[in-house]
Amino acid sequence: MKSDQRVTLYGFPGSCSLIIMIALEEIIWSFDVVIQNLIGDEHVKQPYPAINPEGRVPALAVDGNILTEIPAILLYIAESEPKAELLPPLTDPMKRAQVMSRVSWLASSALAACNQLAQPGNTCVDITLHPWVKKSALQSIKLDLMFVESEISDEGYWFGDFTIADIFVFFIHDFAGRCGVDLSAMPRLCNLAMRIGTRPAVIRSVDWTIWASQTLALTK
Amino acid sequence: MKSDQRVTLYGFPGSCSLIIMIALEEIIWSFDVVIQNLIGDEHVKQPYPAINPEGRVPALAVDGNILTEIPAILLYIAESEPKAELLPPLTDPMKRAQVMSRVSWLASSALAACNQLAQPGNTCVDITLHPWVKKSALQSIKLDLMFVESEISDEGYWFGDFTIADIFVFFIHDFAGRCGVDLSAMPRLCNLAMRIGTRPAVIRSVDWTIWASQTLALTK
Repeated sequence: MKSDQRVTLYGFPGSCSLIIMIALEEIIWSFDVVIQNLIGDEHVKQPYPAINPEGRVPALAVDGNILTEIPAILLYIAESEPKAELLPPLTDPMKRAQVMSRVSWLASSALAACNQLAQPGNTCVDITLHPWVKKSALQSIKLDLMFVESEISDEGYWFGDFTIADIFVFFIHDFAGRCGVDLSAMPRLCNLAMRIGTRPAVIRSVDWTIWASQTLALTK
Repeated sequence: MKSDQRVTLYGFPGSCSLIIMIALEEIIWSFDVVIQNLIGDEHVKQPYPAINPEGRVPALAVDGNILTEIPAILLYIAESEPKAELLPPLTDPMKRAQVMSRVSWLASSALAACNQLAQPGNTCVDITLHPWVKKSALQSIKLDLMFVESEISDEGYWFGDFTIADIFVFFIHDFAGRCGVDLSAMPRLCNLAMRIGTRPAVIRSVDWTIWASQTLALTK
């Protein structure tokens, strides 16, 4: 990174902004975090919509440029620091695209289901249907994780070397566990998540999540 | 492209595989098209699931490697032929990522809504709720296109030069028009779609769509 570069992550502890935090920690950039309180609806009040009109987290600000959508932010981080090798090299566009394919798929399928689970009102205005929306979302997350299980091996990472796809599936696995998805039929995925969880960048990000969650609870 | 490279697009006329066809035509690769008949459920019968376990179109096969998810296929095509400049150069990772952000957003929002409109049963098993699912999807597509309208200018393309984001929004605009979305409040978007529609690669792809639709109707 350039020495005068100013990087700000807009996120919320426990949300998918963890994915971006881990990626930033992996490339060892220094960055500020601005907590957008999803519970308090702070993210739909000014000044955040002026920063990110979509009102969602995560968003990444770099020298005043705002970036949204997790696959794009991950691509930006990986391309800005190619030495960190968070994506296969440009000499292998097919393998790069295969990693991006899984990232894109997780964003539009499993992550969309996580959002439905957390905020069913965004999918469905009729509150009587929310139990159905949640059940359907849980089923969708489980099916997606079963597909990942079928693709990974007992060793290494999803695509051999560590990539942004591992960061993404680490979050989905963690979220699914917190929501009570039965992961017992996915031993390879659980082992993969454990291996990812031992990386220093991941430990730092999870520690921040715990600290920020406690701080938010204290200040409520 | 390498002279011995074998490229196959699995698609269906009228579907979002048009996006990939246009991108391939833009970089002037020669490719075969295999029509997966979405209406006849051919895409969920063998041998297609063996090629693409997700059973969806589009998929791109290059020398036996299968690629799915539109944002990833577009990234692959752009990176394989950088001279075609379908993405900003690697020296500007922020602008590249901003284009990919809109591509990723269109895939997870507007395109998901198009799919709900075409196949509401995939979102909702209860057939009595399908009118609601379709109404909600139409509203979602319209809101997304209004957002695009707010970002584009009267001249040039979405990000100045032509990119994969223009190809994607061309399809969404066309699909929305076919589904009866009122586009009268989006004059800049309609003009952008007209400009995109005059590109030789787009004309060739639309001509193929018309030919393939007529051929399928004749062989039914």
